[in-house]
Parts: sequence; C-alpha cells; structure tokens
Amino acid sequence: MRLEDLGEFPLIERLTAGLESRADVALGIGDDAAALDLGADQLLLATCDAQVEGTHFLPSVATPEEIGHKALAVNLSDIAAMGGEPLWALVSLLAPPDLDVAMLDGVYSGMRALARQFNVALVGGNISSTPGPLTLDITALGRVARDRVLTRAGARPGDRLLVTGRLGAAVTALLAYTDADHAALPAEAAAALGEARRAMVTPQPRVREGQALAATGQVTAMLDISDGLAGDLGHLCQRSGVGALVELAALPVDGATRTLAQALGRDPLGIALTSGDDYELLFTTRPGGVTAALEAVRAVGGVATVIGEITDVASGLRVRAQNGKQLALEARGWDHLRPHTTPADEPPDVGAP
Amino acid sequence: MRLEDLGEFPLIERLTAGLESRADVALGIGDDAAALDLGADQLLLATCDAQVEGTHFLPSVATPEEIGHKALAVNLSDIAAMGGEPLWALVSLLAPPDLDVAMLDGVYSGMRALARQFNVALVGGNISSTPGPLTLDITALGRVARDRVLTRAGARPGDRLLVTGRLGAAVTALLAYTDADHAALPAEAAAALGEARRAMVTPQPRVREGQALAATGQVTAMLDISDGLAGDLGHLCQRSGVGALVELAALPVDGATRTLAQALGRDPLGIALTSGDDYELLFTTRPGGVTAALEAVRAVGGVATVIGEITDVASGLRVRAQNGKQLALEARGWDHLRPHTTPADEPPDVGAP
Repeated sequence: MRLEDLGEFPLIERLTAGLESRADVALGIGDDAAALDLGADQLLLATCDAQVEGTHFLPSVATPEEIGHKALAVNLSDIAAMGGEPLWALVSLLAPPDLDVAMLDGVYSGMRALARQFNVALVGGNISSTPGPLTLDITALGRVARDRVLTRAGARPGDRLLVTGRLGAAVTALLAYTDADHAALPAEAAAALGEARRAMVTPQPRVREGQALAATGQVTAMLDISDGLAGDLGHLCQRSGVGALVELAALPVDGATRTLAQALGRDPLGIALTSGDDYELLFTTRPGGVTAALEAVRAVGGVATVIGEITDVASGLRVRAQNGKQLALEARGWDHLRPHTTPADEPPDVGAP
Repeated sequence: MRLEDLGEFPLIERLTAGLESRADVALGIGDDAAALDLGADQLLLATCDAQVEGTHFLPSVATPEEIGHKALAVNLSDIAAMGGEPLWALVSLLAPPDLDVAMLDGVYSGMRALARQFNVALVGGNISSTPGPLTLDITALGRVARDRVLTRAGARPGDRLLVTGRLGAAVTALLAYTDADHAALPAEAAAALGEARRAMVTPQPRVREGQALAATGQVTAMLDISDGLAGDLGHLCQRSGVGALVELAALPVDGATRTLAQALGRDPLGIALTSGDDYELLFTTRPGGVTAALEAVRAVGGVATVIGEITDVASGLRVRAQNGKQLALEARGWDHLRPHTTPADEPPDVGAP
C-alpha cells in the first residue's frame, strides 16, 4: 500500500502504535507540541514542522523573506497553541547545491526578523544537500507553566467555541494564484488579493493570544488551525470526546476575503470552514469564561470570535447554516499525503447565499 | 553565487552572522548540540540532523530498519558528544506519496529499536509530502549536568588526543559499494565488507562512553566524528585555539577495514584520517587524565585509543607519518554542499606502506 492510499493520520497511528514512552513525557505525539517534564514548575514544549517548496510555498508568489517568516511562524503557532512561550528554534535546511546564496540570505533574514519579534533564539540547525525541493524543517522549543498548559483534550459539552483572527484568507489567495488568471481580476478583487496574500505568506503566530488565553484559567482546550477549521475541530473533539456545533454565519471572514472569493466564484464561508493554513487559535472556554477570553485576547491587541459550542459526543460535528438548518460537518482536514486538485479541494456548499 | 561554490561552513557563518541570542543560551550554533539553561543544575541539549536518500543512505544497500537506526543514531551521537543523556526525539518525515507503507514500517521499527536501547522517547514529529527523495530529519533532546557539559572549546596544549572505537569502516564499505564491483571481491574482502557494512548502516552512538568520559572530570573537549577525523579535529582545534599532532600509526583501524581497503587499492589510514560517518567520539584529556579516560570507556564496554596530542596553535594540524616525518594535515572535512566524486574524495597519501 502506498502512503497516499493510507493517508496522513492513519499512517501516524500505524507508525506510532504501542510507542514506548518515558515517565517524564507529560504529553507525547498527538497534540500541537510535546510537553516534557523537567522536574520544575515549567514544562518544556517541543514541536517540528517542515515547509517544502512547491507544497507549502511557491517561490513565484512568496519572497525569500516571506518563506523564512512562514517556516518559523508555523512552528511558533504550535507553541502558542499550548499556551506556551517560544524560546529557541533549530533550523534544518535541505537545499539543492545550485541554489543561489542570495535566496537563502533572504530566507534567513525573514526567519530572523520573526525570531527577534518573539525573542526566540536560533540555537542550532543543520544543512544538507538534496536534489529535491528546497525544504525548511524547523523545531521550536518553548515552555509553559505546568498548571497552564492547554491541550486538545479538555473541552466539555456546554463549553463555548471560539477562534482568534480571521479565517480563509490564505487559501483564498492561493486559489487566486493557482486557479485563476489573477492578473485579470477586477480592481477591487485585485486589491483584496493583495491583502489575502499577506495572510498566506506571512501568517502571524498567535503567541501573545495563546499565553493570554492560558492565563485566564477559563480555556479548556486549544489548538491551531493548520489543517482547516473543520479538520482541526475534528481533532479537538476526538481528543476531548465531545461533539460541536458551528454557527456558519459567525465565522470571521473579512471583507477582502469575501470579495476575492466571490470574484473567483467560490463560497467564502465554505473556504473558511474547510481550508487550512490559517494559523489561528481554535479554543473552547467554560460557559462563563467567554468574556474573560475575549478580553484577554483584546488586551494583547488581538481579536477573537465565538463561533459555536461544544455538544455531547453523540451529536457529532455539526454546522448550522444560514438558513437555520443543521448539517453534519465532515471533519475533513488537510491530509498531507493525499492528492488534492487544489488546497480547498471541492469545499462543500454549506448554504451560503 | 551558488551554495556549492560557497561551501557548507562559510554558508553557516554567513547566515548566522550577528545572530541574536538570549541569556539562557549557554551554547548556541557551532557545537554538536545547543546547550540551553532552564535554571536548574541541568542544561537541556538540542540537536538536529537529516538523512537524505541517495546522499546519506542508499536503499539498495541499507534495509529500512537500518535507515531508521542510522537516522536516530547520528542525532544521539551529537548528544553523546556533549557528555549528555538523550531523552526525547522528534521525527520529521518527508516522503513521496507513492512510497510503500511497508518501507516506513521498517524505518520506524529500526528507529524505535534504537530509541528503546537508549531509553529515548519519540515524542513528536511531522509528516510532509515531498516529490524529492525520502528524508528523515530528527531532533534529539537530552540533558547534561551544568558542570559536566563537554564542548569543542576546552583543549589546551599538552592535552592528549583520543578517539573511541574504530575508524574508517563506514566509508571503506561505501567505497566498495560505489566504486567497485563488490560482488567480485575475493572471499576475505567480501567477509570484511560484511563487517564494514554494519559500521556504515548501523553506527552505534557512543552515549555511554560520552557520559562516562564527562564523569571523569579529565576530558577537556569532545565532539563526534561525522565529517571525518581531520575535519572534526580541525573544528575542535579552531574552537579551542590550539593545534594538534596525530600519530598516523596509532589510528585504530580494524583488520576487516584494512583488508577491504587493500582489496580496493585504497590506503586504510588515509581513509581513517579523512573520511566521515564514523560517529566515534574524538576527545582530549588533561595530560594526567588518559588512564582515567581509558578506564571509564572500558567500564561501559567500549574502547578508546590515544592517537596524538594537542599543541600550540602556531603548530597547526600535523600528522606524524609512519616514516617519522611530520606533515601538515589539511582540516578537510566533509562539506555537505560541495560536489564529491566519492565520499573519500582523493584521500591524501599520508605515507602508509
């Protein structure tokens, strides 16, 4: 059987079945980052994520600086999703020997600028030659107080479901670059593409938001949206043993993304529901904790939105469409091993006008 | 300018020039692992290293289990080189979607067996699709007591130079597989290839030796030999601000490697001096510390050999050939970005008979 026939998540389960652990592993494979017990009141967080040219970034769309930014950002996002403070990163570079050094200058410049912004030190790495595509594989390390770590596993029925920032811009931009003749977009949509493009190439890791949310004591579960809202909500519900109801009309999709999606003949809410690469934080709060969570995010300059609630596991994943009807929501996230025709391969029509 | 024109080490210097750090980074880029200060009496060690199909392993020579073993072993070796105890690892897998799942079953089986042997927990990772070669990029984390950490920087003139294990077998085996019709080797050399092959595909990280050496308090500098003895000795001397004299006749090259090298028309001592992939520990002791170091390695079932001494920096890197003459030794290690015709590209003739 080939990897693409099995799929990413069944493969991970297969390769790690019965995996030996150690007593000092507070949290192993299966969350945004591992949490490791060093015996003090802090847990060490560790995560790694790779960016492959042609799969995760397109040099025709992103500048070298933006490629470096994103490679680090997606890792800081995983530390943020645990409520943690990122501290250090290791950069493994797989590069073709005939690559122009100036291109890497730009990549490292973008990576270093983001590291500086979050006071992260690049402390190690590796350079290997590859005939294949340029690949940046980064490991981020951070820490979180033992009593503040947020995992995917704590949501309970009645909890409210929230998300930081805006959804769908990154994939809408990518659709414009890959599916359409983006040079021919009408002026308003072209301006919207400029805005959506920034979300695609320079995602902002929600590090401050994640730490602020962890400090409220009201958040019950959290993860970042890298595989799409529906897919990552599925991960959260599976780990927590709950269901969820998403209010479609509540999804935070900004005007530029709506404008661009409509110019492309796409449903912006469908994209927001199913597409990946948003790197926002999806989290649940105790029923009485919504105000504290919204205020905590606002206090660090961010924004969060209530988009639904946690239900019992028997109710499954559901979405309430704008016509009031509840539909089953397939927890279909991004699978890195399966073939896709586009990043938002056939997003479902969920009843948007 | 292309990467291969600049070379690996100048590229690292260029990309990390003026790099920002943090007060809790005890040791950043430039040693076998980063050492990070968590405020307790232990330092956290972190290192990453990638294995690329066709560059670091050949599926025609190594089994999937051996490929997995080596991918983890080279990282545990870096933790060992700091005198550390490996604890956890993250595995980033870059795989073509049409790869056979059974191949990865074998890779993970080999990796997990080695992890079990050293009580290392696999705590995280990532799977990405790549059109390029299969790549295993592993980050290993470990710890070492603050007052026992061994770096490349502590050697002083008069210190003795030692190495664990045997040298040259891995590259001699690779030369047999790539340069010669290894099916046509005479019987004795074919048997020797079987032995040398094991050194190539299943290097044994010297974790116990590294910790035992750190505990003696007599070791002044240490690193592992991944780029070749001459190259890595060059790294040690550069960091320590010293020179070194290597006794060619003292290099520990086992009988099988000599037999195989001679059947290939190669100088086994030249290979031992310049070739990489040995993953032995190269270290220096105070002049009076040799016995303690040898005994410490023996006590954990290993072997170490005195191969020379540390000199002042003005003397540079030198090797005393078997005819008694001293020759300048070029600190030419393996450069992952430059083209090589073979792994031991034109090893120098250093006067072996």
